[in-house]
Amino acid sequence: MSRARGTVAIVGIADTPVGVVPRPGATGLCIDAILGALADAGLPKDAVDGLVTLNPTAEPYTYHAEAIAESLGLAPSWCWSTLTGGSSAIGALQQAVHAIDAGACEVVVIAMADSLRSGLTREAAVAMQASTGHPQFERPYGAPVVAHYALIARAHMHEYGTTPEQFAAVAVATRAHAARNPAAQMRTPIAVDDVLASRPIADPLKLLDCSLVSDGGAALVLTSAVRARDLRRPPVYFLGAGAAVGHEHVSQARSLTTSAAVESGRRAYAAAGAGPREIDFAQLYDCFTPVVLIELEDLGFCAKGEAGAFVAAGHTAPGGRLPVNTHGGLLSHAHSGHPSTLFAITETVRQLRGECGERQLARAELALVHGQGGVLSSHATAIFGRAPR
Amino acid sequence: MSRARGTVAIVGIADTPVGVVPRPGATGLCIDAILGALADAGLPKDAVDGLVTLNPTAEPYTYHAEAIAESLGLAPSWCWSTLTGGSSAIGALQQAVHAIDAGACEVVVIAMADSLRSGLTREAAVAMQASTGHPQFERPYGAPVVAHYALIARAHMHEYGTTPEQFAAVAVATRAHAARNPAAQMRTPIAVDDVLASRPIADPLKLLDCSLVSDGGAALVLTSAVRARDLRRPPVYFLGAGAAVGHEHVSQARSLTTSAAVESGRRAYAAAGAGPREIDFAQLYDCFTPVVLIELEDLGFCAKGEAGAFVAAGHTAPGGRLPVNTHGGLLSHAHSGHPSTLFAITETVRQLRGECGERQLARAELALVHGQGGVLSSHATAIFGRAPR
Repeated sequence: MSRARGTVAIVGIADTPVGVVPRPGATGLCIDAILGALADAGLPKDAVDGLVTLNPTAEPYTYHAEAIAESLGLAPSWCWSTLTGGSSAIGALQQAVHAIDAGACEVVVIAMADSLRSGLTREAAVAMQASTGHPQFERPYGAPVVAHYALIARAHMHEYGTTPEQFAAVAVATRAHAARNPAAQMRTPIAVDDVLASRPIADPLKLLDCSLVSDGGAALVLTSAVRARDLRRPPVYFLGAGAAVGHEHVSQARSLTTSAAVESGRRAYAAAGAGPREIDFAQLYDCFTPVVLIELEDLGFCAKGEAGAFVAAGHTAPGGRLPVNTHGGLLSHAHSGHPSTLFAITETVRQLRGECGERQLARAELALVHGQGGVLSSHATAIFGRAPR
Repeated sequence: MSRARGTVAIVGIADTPVGVVPRPGATGLCIDAILGALADAGLPKDAVDGLVTLNPTAEPYTYHAEAIAESLGLAPSWCWSTLTGGSSAIGALQQAVHAIDAGACEVVVIAMADSLRSGLTREAAVAMQASTGHPQFERPYGAPVVAHYALIARAHMHEYGTTPEQFAAVAVATRAHAARNPAAQMRTPIAVDDVLASRPIADPLKLLDCSLVSDGGAALVLTSAVRARDLRRPPVYFLGAGAAVGHEHVSQARSLTTSAAVESGRRAYAAAGAGPREIDFAQLYDCFTPVVLIELEDLGFCAKGEAGAFVAAGHTAPGGRLPVNTHGGLLSHAHSGHPSTLFAITETVRQLRGECGERQLARAELALVHGQGGVLSSHATAIFGRAPR
């Protein structure tokens, strides 16, 4: 969407521990992540003049970014919170790039943490899941969020012959990545049969088709490519992004199996001047396994209906032709509310910097990250590179 | 903050009726405002490729902008919701300008509606007021939002000798503007004695020192100055904005009487290449009367401590040297949650276009709009003009 390619770089990243991290709560995790990312960048707190936080859900605290700024003693001139679910991180990043390009600010931090795993009672968690969907057209039918994705899964099976084994293959490939990532919440390798034998949640989805619930947070530091050259880490360049909105509500959607990722991807590729064949690895939004198949198709990595076979053939697994979710994704690394896409970006930065140890990809020049918020709704795609284009 | 001056213009505006407007609810009011603003601009729905909604509070519906997009049948490529209280409108505007300047989108709608007046029970309203402030450091003491502003009022009295009569003069001047605005919720002229005799709310603030609670919504349509030339209404140019963050929490503030408006104003003036003496009229955030005095001082219209006398002398009233809140502000036009600053902008556009009938200012070339969210926290200032600079 932006005409700029490589004018802004990510120069610092940090993740907090993820999983069951009951202390210090979402605000404290967010601050830990910010301080970690600034240390990684080698920048002091007072260099920060922009701050964005994503979807404060766990501590529904009206003006979250300002509260974080005050807690940290920051005085950003560009400070706001956003609310577009799993696409927030890329949306915020794109706006940060515009702000840096416009000269409105120089060093922007994007951060988020959640403590949904430790911070909610079981009752509150069930109530939260059940409050997904349109308050008039969907909630009265009692479908929790997983049931919406079960409808999507069933539609993909009906339209393209996709099988539960192919959904399971997504979970298996993702776990194989997580097994190589010491930071991941779930690292024990699994097989397709393990997924199929796991507890049914909403037919056809099993427990292991569903992403985790985690505590944790992450932060990014961005600045101009010019300033990035003088910092301590190799810059990772933002090359372009695209966003698109589909249907907020499953009940109103024209299609359950084709999403606005088609359009967000088209825009991101155009902005970056690259296509799916040039992408070395992708971090896709894997809240439930069928979503990964739809994204692989909608983002042009597979023809429509062919992603099930693509994943089952191992192409997204470690060593495959398109490694997907190299950190373990939402399925095996962490699904910590809305920081999730930030974790995908911090992993992307590590891969592009070559810092991933055992799981380092042999080729990591150009990466795609996709996030989505709402069941079919808000999609955003970003492309990053080791070099500006 | 932006280097651009006058590259983007407001080309369409609309307000819904305000006050007690029980139907069609916040979502419906928001849609009415958007359709009205597009009609004003002479643009079809499908011209819109950017949509921002502000702080969905009345219908706490997770992905508000996307829900509005779906309801209207829009497919924006840039679609998000923001959360910085009364500074949201200017924050969103500034980001829309960056996005348009960057070529990320061409026609952006910023919209918001609330139905807090009709949509909350008395109990829910009291609970909402009482949930303001830091959850650990302030709420346990039981101070509702008005008590925070009472502390600020008392500090201004203590430090500068400001009097309750001077606070009351703000309400009186604002009502005099509202009396000339057929759309305002409260139009009966009042005198200082009426304010002083009104019900005590939180000493020293009386009922008429407090803003209204209203239903209502508003929307703006923005596009590039180049495209604006071909549209039906005279463009109103965005000349610059600045934002700054002070203290989220009264209990932690270094000062109760000097706010981040000093910094947001400084940035806005620098961006627009104009100073307070060149401003013909100002729309200030008047949630409570003392706030207007602090803003007049912090934005450079008065020396510190002199705003009480400035307002009591009639300078902000109709015919004064700096008319303030020419529509009637939050005190007398409407305080509809977070659309309030949008109403200040729609009024500014009408004044700059010369469409205000009885209340039209003789001189309306350059205007300042200020919004703030949180008690002392998030400030944003924007400057608009009849001509690009």
